[in-house]
Amino acid sequence: MPSDNLLKQIEFIKEIDKLKYIQRKTRLLNSDRHENDAEHSWHLAMMAIVLAEHSNEPVDILKVIKMVLIHDIVEIDAGDTFIYDAQKNHSNTDEERIAANRIFGLLPGEQAADLIAVWEEFEAGETKEARFARSMDRLEPLLQNTSNNGGTWAEFGVDYNKVYGKKKVIKMGSEAIWGFAEMLIDESVEKGILKKNV
Amino acid sequence: MPSDNLLKQIEFIKEIDKLKYIQRKTRLLNSDRHENDAEHSWHLAMMAIVLAEHSNEPVDILKVIKMVLIHDIVEIDAGDTFIYDAQKNHSNTDEERIAANRIFGLLPGEQAADLIAVWEEFEAGETKEARFARSMDRLEPLLQNTSNNGGTWAEFGVDYNKVYGKKKVIKMGSEAIWGFAEMLIDESVEKGILKKNV
Repeated sequence: MPSDNLLKQIEFIKEIDKLKYIQRKTRLLNSDRHENDAEHSWHLAMMAIVLAEHSNEPVDILKVIKMVLIHDIVEIDAGDTFIYDAQKNHSNTDEERIAANRIFGLLPGEQAADLIAVWEEFEAGETKEARFARSMDRLEPLLQNTSNNGGTWAEFGVDYNKVYGKKKVIKMGSEAIWGFAEMLIDESVEKGILKKNV
Repeated sequence: MPSDNLLKQIEFIKEIDKLKYIQRKTRLLNSDRHENDAEHSWHLAMMAIVLAEHSNEPVDILKVIKMVLIHDIVEIDAGDTFIYDAQKNHSNTDEERIAANRIFGLLPGEQAADLIAVWEEFEAGETKEARFARSMDRLEPLLQNTSNNGGTWAEFGVDYNKVYGKKKVIKMGSEAIWGFAEMLIDESVEKGILKKNV
């Protein structure tokens, strides 16, 4: 008979399949197809692997990868919150904490506690791993929107100041990547796909 | 100005967005929606993280995660090969090697060589990390097909012997998970969703 641990882990593995149905506002590169959270999480993990050398501080890359792989799992219950949504704060709502406890709670106790701690650390954004992981999370939509003629900026009337405000989180994780991000933002203004005042 | 390394890495990151369009034969759990390679890769990475304790031998989990995250990237050029396709061998075709060289070759030299080596190691399946990573790759469709009334087994007339033959790769990575997999296969025969002779 499979062990109790294994059966709990299989239940968790089945449950998180639902992440593949959570649609983000952003769209794939040069595309009108929305990205889902599972694809997004895979892409961030690949970005973390190839961009690690640009972190402001050396990071435990395994922890960064875990962070980005699990960071949106709470959205299975809590749903995706658009980063420029003025009504709903993205970070650590009660709803997300309840979701984390329910979903990671399907795992054996110690493993559940470990992954909840990794998720909390990502959300708090205070450690070097969390800062680098969050910079990946902010960079991907920048690549997407610049490839899609402004993407969600154009679609939802988001202006330069709002974008700059959200994107400067990248600087906390990587000065080098922030330099590249600033360049993309400036180019977007020049091209007219990001407006100074909407 | 962004460094040459960073610009190459960004090109790679953009290129692999295409993995989100590669459709697999298998479908999501309890669903008729096909899975794509990016979602699949994310799911395998999560499985590796939560199931690591069941590996036959202690593994470098970071390497396992890298393997499963990148293992299908060659399909951007070479396309998905169905595991039960009798005409086309899944493993290491010339087409896949050319794809690996082109796609990972977008990265700075040393990084490209590193990831090609990780991919080759996964394909060869001889190290403990490759064996465990490959067991994850065989387990996920088993969960999918058993949830979908036989899934690709029913759709393509794949019988017990073929399934058993492909799935026993799991045993090389994890005896414990193989025990669970065998139970699922036997239950599938009992339920009539996997035929002994098609």
